[in-house]
Amino acid sequence: MDFSKNFNQSRPSVKWWFFFLGVYFTISVNSLFAQTTGVSEANQAMVKQIFTQALTDGRCHPWLESLCKQVGHRLSGSKGAAEAVIWSKSVLDTLGLDSVWLQPVMVPHWERGAKEQVAVMGSKKKDKYALRALALGGSVGTDGKKIQAEVVEAKSWSDLERLGEAGIKGKIVLFNRPMDPARIRSFDAYGGAVDQRVSGASRAAKYGAVAVMVRSMTQNIDQWPHTGSLRYDSAVARIPAVAISTADAEKLSALIKKDPTLKVSMQLNCQTLPEVLSYNVIGEIRGSVYPESIVLAGGHLDSWDVGEGAHDDGTGCVQSMDVLRILKKTGYKPRHTIRCVLFMNEENGLRGGKKYAEESARKGEKQVCAIETDAGGFTPRGFTFDAHEDTFDTLFEKIKPLRPYFEPYNMTLNPGGGGADIGPLKPQKGLLCGYYPDSQRYFDFHHTEADVFEVVNKRELELGTASMTALIFLIDGAF
Amino acid sequence: MDFSKNFNQSRPSVKWWFFFLGVYFTISVNSLFAQTTGVSEANQAMVKQIFTQALTDGRCHPWLESLCKQVGHRLSGSKGAAEAVIWSKSVLDTLGLDSVWLQPVMVPHWERGAKEQVAVMGSKKKDKYALRALALGGSVGTDGKKIQAEVVEAKSWSDLERLGEAGIKGKIVLFNRPMDPARIRSFDAYGGAVDQRVSGASRAAKYGAVAVMVRSMTQNIDQWPHTGSLRYDSAVARIPAVAISTADAEKLSALIKKDPTLKVSMQLNCQTLPEVLSYNVIGEIRGSVYPESIVLAGGHLDSWDVGEGAHDDGTGCVQSMDVLRILKKTGYKPRHTIRCVLFMNEENGLRGGKKYAEESARKGEKQVCAIETDAGGFTPRGFTFDAHEDTFDTLFEKIKPLRPYFEPYNMTLNPGGGGADIGPLKPQKGLLCGYYPDSQRYFDFHHTEADVFEVVNKRELELGTASMTALIFLIDGAF
Repeated sequence: MDFSKNFNQSRPSVKWWFFFLGVYFTISVNSLFAQTTGVSEANQAMVKQIFTQALTDGRCHPWLESLCKQVGHRLSGSKGAAEAVIWSKSVLDTLGLDSVWLQPVMVPHWERGAKEQVAVMGSKKKDKYALRALALGGSVGTDGKKIQAEVVEAKSWSDLERLGEAGIKGKIVLFNRPMDPARIRSFDAYGGAVDQRVSGASRAAKYGAVAVMVRSMTQNIDQWPHTGSLRYDSAVARIPAVAISTADAEKLSALIKKDPTLKVSMQLNCQTLPEVLSYNVIGEIRGSVYPESIVLAGGHLDSWDVGEGAHDDGTGCVQSMDVLRILKKTGYKPRHTIRCVLFMNEENGLRGGKKYAEESARKGEKQVCAIETDAGGFTPRGFTFDAHEDTFDTLFEKIKPLRPYFEPYNMTLNPGGGGADIGPLKPQKGLLCGYYPDSQRYFDFHHTEADVFEVVNKRELELGTASMTALIFLIDGAF
Repeated sequence: MDFSKNFNQSRPSVKWWFFFLGVYFTISVNSLFAQTTGVSEANQAMVKQIFTQALTDGRCHPWLESLCKQVGHRLSGSKGAAEAVIWSKSVLDTLGLDSVWLQPVMVPHWERGAKEQVAVMGSKKKDKYALRALALGGSVGTDGKKIQAEVVEAKSWSDLERLGEAGIKGKIVLFNRPMDPARIRSFDAYGGAVDQRVSGASRAAKYGAVAVMVRSMTQNIDQWPHTGSLRYDSAVARIPAVAISTADAEKLSALIKKDPTLKVSMQLNCQTLPEVLSYNVIGEIRGSVYPESIVLAGGHLDSWDVGEGAHDDGTGCVQSMDVLRILKKTGYKPRHTIRCVLFMNEENGLRGGKKYAEESARKGEKQVCAIETDAGGFTPRGFTFDAHEDTFDTLFEKIKPLRPYFEPYNMTLNPGGGGADIGPLKPQKGLLCGYYPDSQRYFDFHHTEADVFEVVNKRELELGTASMTALIFLIDGAF
């Protein structure tokens, strides 16, 4: 470390010395590790080259800016989604790949319509105010009318049952169970609360509710309503459903306690239109040894109809695209076909993922490994691996020897989930892999107006791209 | 996972299933690990309680807001620094600690004065423009005058030597070696570039330069000038030194290539004033078994005189303070004395760290372990440990068994650096420990106007507090 000669007597720099010492130790430990585990120096060098390429000459960040700012949000069936298909194909067309094509798929088409109007109608002037709300994706509208009804709060399914028809009929239910802030991985907290959004409307409709409001899916107390899809049970009436911000949910909860007859008014202008033809966007570098065997990198091209779909899942798209560019740039000739797939309609139908698996089966292809990146463009923590139970143990044995390559990057390779779009590939019995970034900031932005280009950090995004490219390179060699 | 009954047929939720599966595997692996390594279930439960307390009832985030917004930046000797002493003592006074006190220390007092004026003076109109600049801390001013001189660029020390007196005398040197974006840990890249800021002025002065401009310390190309301290060599003339933004450095570099006689004008109004009395701020919970043995948590209370000193090092201060509050809240009675130290003057003198070590030695205290948090309030990656060479091996053997407690939190305990303020404690031969958060975003903000409360994520900050508290609890039991 030659700079030491120049500033090692400087007091203000002392703090950095401790970091350099740390690095020295880490490098020593890693070198030792390499010697004892038989990792290949050539592979290590290629992994380093991939990281350097991604960090010094990456394209994912400017591509993300272009997708977010020129296309914007892109819910299935929308003009934005159609533009995103054209945008991503045109970018892939510039990369000198062996093929780029569109895979047709019919997708649902739900439209929000004019801004939803949701308001508290308290008796005092200060208790009359608009709520920050977003209709849930798939919700029915209010037929051009304004619903007005008393509100009852349910913090749990047992609360709902306790209220029963007597307490719910003709009313609006506020589902107000928070995402548990004590859960370390924010996805676990989401898992413990999102059932309210997905099935709250139908469960409340069974007791005669006229509409539901759902506390937004975030561990923060803030002003952003978070949309997301719901599922109607066909056995009961379809009632309107909105997400309200956590700050509004907290305030409303306090108000209801003071005035149990408090009313809320709601007008939603959303509707479900006929299905629309759309596309998965696919590009590939043909394998030199096993062209019918595919290593896949993918994200989803659709987003919710608010913000710019930056972390969900613009980042996954541009990362998957940049994987192919970086592999081309390094001059690497893959043994397997390396394919980038931008799936349409992950958010409200998963039609793209299902269509892709269907077509892949029809053609007799085999995905050796499919990697999905759909957890945000945050700093990498590792990858998680899944497969059909018949093959998981055998396949994961081939992954374990790759762990040392990721240790210098502070990343782990462990059993765990793949991703929604690649789930339908499970019957092919190949590996399904999820890119696993740090999860702490994801629900600051997820499905909100705040999910814009500016909240994605360039280096964190690029490190994700590099990690995916490195894993694909190593899997191409190991399988 | 009872919510599965409610929404497991819903397509949009499929992607989350993969995360839940991952969590299940992780939990299984961790349980197995606990069985084979003999970690204590009581300790695990206490660690969990600490994390829950930090994440559901933490104070560090509102305290940070108060420090940033009510006190603001706080360079040693400034009004802000004096207010920060009062602010932090008054907060510690509310926590029911056994003692809270101020430790007097004389500190340097450097003042920026009126905004620096640095401008490119090209012959064409478009080449006359102001540079985004900040005088380096400790720089001399320009005596109320404007320096104007030709600029020469050095990308390396060899460039400087090659230019020599013939190329440098009477000119302004632009040090323009970037922080290497290919380095994974951004602190390593900083280590490879910061010598320009620290010793560039004196090295250029040896060849007769009249001033220097230093490319800002960040891997980004952006508009923020990053200040920081320099060190003058007493053997040569003290010349003015500024940091300019990386975007400006790139643009200026291109201009110089086109016009080697290009001039820059510079007026700096900074000065060094007489030293000022200031304080380290200290609070402690007295140990029940070894009161003279101390486990220390600390950060530095001073900051640069721009922005709000949020990540550097407001976060370290509020985390260290919240460690004591959380320990009190859980009702834990520590065996050793647990002490929070907010060091004054880390940025441009390290006087607080030196004074603390001096007083500690005088009183015959022993710091069993001193933990410094001064690398930003980002998501935790682990802790690094250092000690005097006589004791490191023995002490680190006692740390290794604590590793399993941090695995559920995806954190590592490895050899590495402690921190600047705790460095002077090394002769006590106790452990020195650095809190090691993710480093990717640190140099987006470091020593700039952009380092404000809003760029600190609440959960990331709280997880750091929790990690520190957990480590202190475990060390208190293990030593």
